[in-house]
Amino acid sequence: MRVPAYAAPAAGQPLAPTVVERRQVGARDVLIQIQYAGICHSDIHTVNGDWGPQPFPVVPGHEIVGVVAEVGAAVTRHRVGDRVGVGCMVASCRECRSCLDGDEQYCLQGMVPTYAGTDRDGTTTQGGYSSHVVVDADYVLSVPESLDPAAAAPLLCAGITTYAPLRRWGVGPGTRVAVVGLGGLGHLAVKIAAALGAEVTVLSQSLKKQEDGLRLGAQHYFATSDPATFTELAGRFDLVLNTVSAAIDVDAYLSLLAVDGTLVNVGAPAEPLSLDVFSLIGARRSFAGSMIGGIALTQEMLDFCAEHGIGAEVEVIPAERVNEAYERVLASDVRYRFVIDTATLS
Amino acid sequence: MRVPAYAAPAAGQPLAPTVVERRQVGARDVLIQIQYAGICHSDIHTVNGDWGPQPFPVVPGHEIVGVVAEVGAAVTRHRVGDRVGVGCMVASCRECRSCLDGDEQYCLQGMVPTYAGTDRDGTTTQGGYSSHVVVDADYVLSVPESLDPAAAAPLLCAGITTYAPLRRWGVGPGTRVAVVGLGGLGHLAVKIAAALGAEVTVLSQSLKKQEDGLRLGAQHYFATSDPATFTELAGRFDLVLNTVSAAIDVDAYLSLLAVDGTLVNVGAPAEPLSLDVFSLIGARRSFAGSMIGGIALTQEMLDFCAEHGIGAEVEVIPAERVNEAYERVLASDVRYRFVIDTATLS
Repeated sequence: MRVPAYAAPAAGQPLAPTVVERRQVGARDVLIQIQYAGICHSDIHTVNGDWGPQPFPVVPGHEIVGVVAEVGAAVTRHRVGDRVGVGCMVASCRECRSCLDGDEQYCLQGMVPTYAGTDRDGTTTQGGYSSHVVVDADYVLSVPESLDPAAAAPLLCAGITTYAPLRRWGVGPGTRVAVVGLGGLGHLAVKIAAALGAEVTVLSQSLKKQEDGLRLGAQHYFATSDPATFTELAGRFDLVLNTVSAAIDVDAYLSLLAVDGTLVNVGAPAEPLSLDVFSLIGARRSFAGSMIGGIALTQEMLDFCAEHGIGAEVEVIPAERVNEAYERVLASDVRYRFVIDTATLS
Repeated sequence: MRVPAYAAPAAGQPLAPTVVERRQVGARDVLIQIQYAGICHSDIHTVNGDWGPQPFPVVPGHEIVGVVAEVGAAVTRHRVGDRVGVGCMVASCRECRSCLDGDEQYCLQGMVPTYAGTDRDGTTTQGGYSSHVVVDADYVLSVPESLDPAAAAPLLCAGITTYAPLRRWGVGPGTRVAVVGLGGLGHLAVKIAAALGAEVTVLSQSLKKQEDGLRLGAQHYFATSDPATFTELAGRFDLVLNTVSAAIDVDAYLSLLAVDGTLVNVGAPAEPLSLDVFSLIGARRSFAGSMIGGIALTQEMLDFCAEHGIGAEVEVIPAERVNEAYERVLASDVRYRFVIDTATLS
C-alpha cells in the first residue's frame, strides 16, 4: 500500500511531499487512517541530523491520532472506526524485564521508534506525517472520543513524557511541583500536574507567558532570568520537572528542592552537565531522568486527560506549512504545539 | 569541667594534647565518659582546612562510644552506667519539617556538628578525642551491650552514613547492590547490605582486598581499573552506593544501573562532577546523595547491628598515635577504621 507523506530527503533538507510504502495488514496489525500528527521538537532534531545519521528519507511524526480503517484477524483490542493513537514506539521485545514491567520504552533489546527505526521485519519505520500507518495493535492506544483529536495528538509524546514522571514521583494533592519551561511539554505538564492536585509553579525564562501559565493551572509563575527567584524559592519543591533541553545550572535548580526532592529531566542537552555533589548530599536530593512512558501508562494518561478535559493547545496547519512550522518551533513561536491536519496530504 | 583531649592547634598542624572545657551538666544533658573515638576521614579534612576555616583549636571525633557518668534532672532516656554513643550532631532546632520528620541531619536551621560547630549556647563544640563530653540526651544513642564498644564507635558515623541510604532506597532480599570502595564506609556498607539480605558486589580500584570483601559478606568483587568490569556489569544493579570521595566517572557508574536504579554518593568530591543526562533518561535512573542519618534511624541502625553482630573492623590505638594514624588513613593503610582508646588520654 503506497500512501502520501511528507519526508526529509536528507539531513537538514526541507521536508517535501513523497509516497511511502506501508506493509500489508498482518494478523496482529491495525491500519490507521491518520487525522492529525503533532510536530515534536525531536522530529526536528532527527531530520536535522542532530542525533546522528538517519535512514533518509525520513517521515517524522510520533504524535499520531486517527481512525482504525482495517484490523488483522487476531486483533481484539481495536475495531474499525475506533479513534486510536500511536506514540513514540511501535514495537519492543515483549520478553525482557522492562517489557514485562510495562516499561516498553526501556526495552533491553531496544524499542522500535515510530520513525527512522528498524522494525522487527527489517524495514525502516516511517512516521505520522502521512495519510495511513500500519502498527501492531499492542502499540496502538485508544483515544477517548471526548478528546478533541487534534488536541489529543500531542498527548502521545508530550503528554506521556510529562505524565510519566509526575506519576513516578508521586505528584498529587500536597505536592509542590515546579515546571521548568512553558513549551509543548511544559504546558501539558502544568495542566496534568494541576489536575493531579499539585501546587504548580512555572519557572520560565521570562514572565512573557505568565498569563497563559496561570490559565493553564499554575498557581505561581517566576522568571529564571531573575536571580531573586532562586533565593525566594530555595528548598520549596518536592519535584522540579525540567522540560528544557538546553543546558541548565543543575545546582541552582537542585537548590530549589526540599529534603528528598527530585529534579527530573525529560529533555537531554547535547553537552554534559556539571553538578556539585553537595547539592545532592545536603538534603538527600536526586537528579533523575525519564523518557516517554510504557503502553499501559500511556493509555492511563489518555483516560486521565479525557476525564479532566486535558488536551494540548494546538495550532493546526496543513502539511505544506511543515517547514515554516519547524522554523517557528525553533524560534519558540508557537503556543504550544503544531499539529498537521493530514487530510491535507492527499 | 576541664578534661584532657587531643586537638589540632591550627590548620594542617599535628594534633597535640590539650585540655578543653566541658559545660556543666544541664537538666537535659548527659555527661559521658568516653571509651573509644573513631577516626573518620572528615576529621582529617576538617583539621587540614580542606573544608574552609575552622574555629581552632579543634578537637575532632564524632564516632564516640562511652558510659554515662552523670545525667541532668530531666533526663529519662539514659541512666548512669549505660553504654551510649554520640555521632555527627549534638543539637538541631527540633521544630523544622526535617527535625519533625526525624531527619535532624537536614535541620533547616542547620544541625550542630559534634565538633567545630557553634552550639545553641554560642560555644564551640569539641569532639570525641577526649575523656568526657556533655551532650543533650536527645542526641545521645543507646549502644547495645552485645556490641564490642571499640567496634561500635565507627557505627556512629560510617555505619549510619551507609545504613541510611541502604534503607532509604529499599535494599533487601532480591536487591542487587554495588558498594564502590572498600574502606571505612564501604566495609560497613557491605556488612549491612548483606545483613539486609541483598546480593552485594564490591567495586574496588583493584582486587587487593577481594578476600576481605567476600569474608565481609559480598558475593562478587570486581576491579574498577579493568574496563571489562563496566561491560560485564552493565544494567545490573538496583543501587550503586559510592563511598569514595574522589571524583568518579558518573556516566560509567550510572551505566551499571538497571531501570529505576539509583547511584547514591555519600561522599562529596571537592570538584563538580560531569554527567550526560542521557545516562539518566535512558533508563529512568537517578543520581542521589545522602548524609549520615537522623537520631531515630541511628538508633535503629545500632539495634540492627547488634542483632546481626555487625561492628567495624578496627585497629585500636593510643591517643598519642593519632597523627601517625591520620597519615595511614590518607595512604589507605588501615583495615578498616582506627579507633582511639581514650583511656590513654589521662
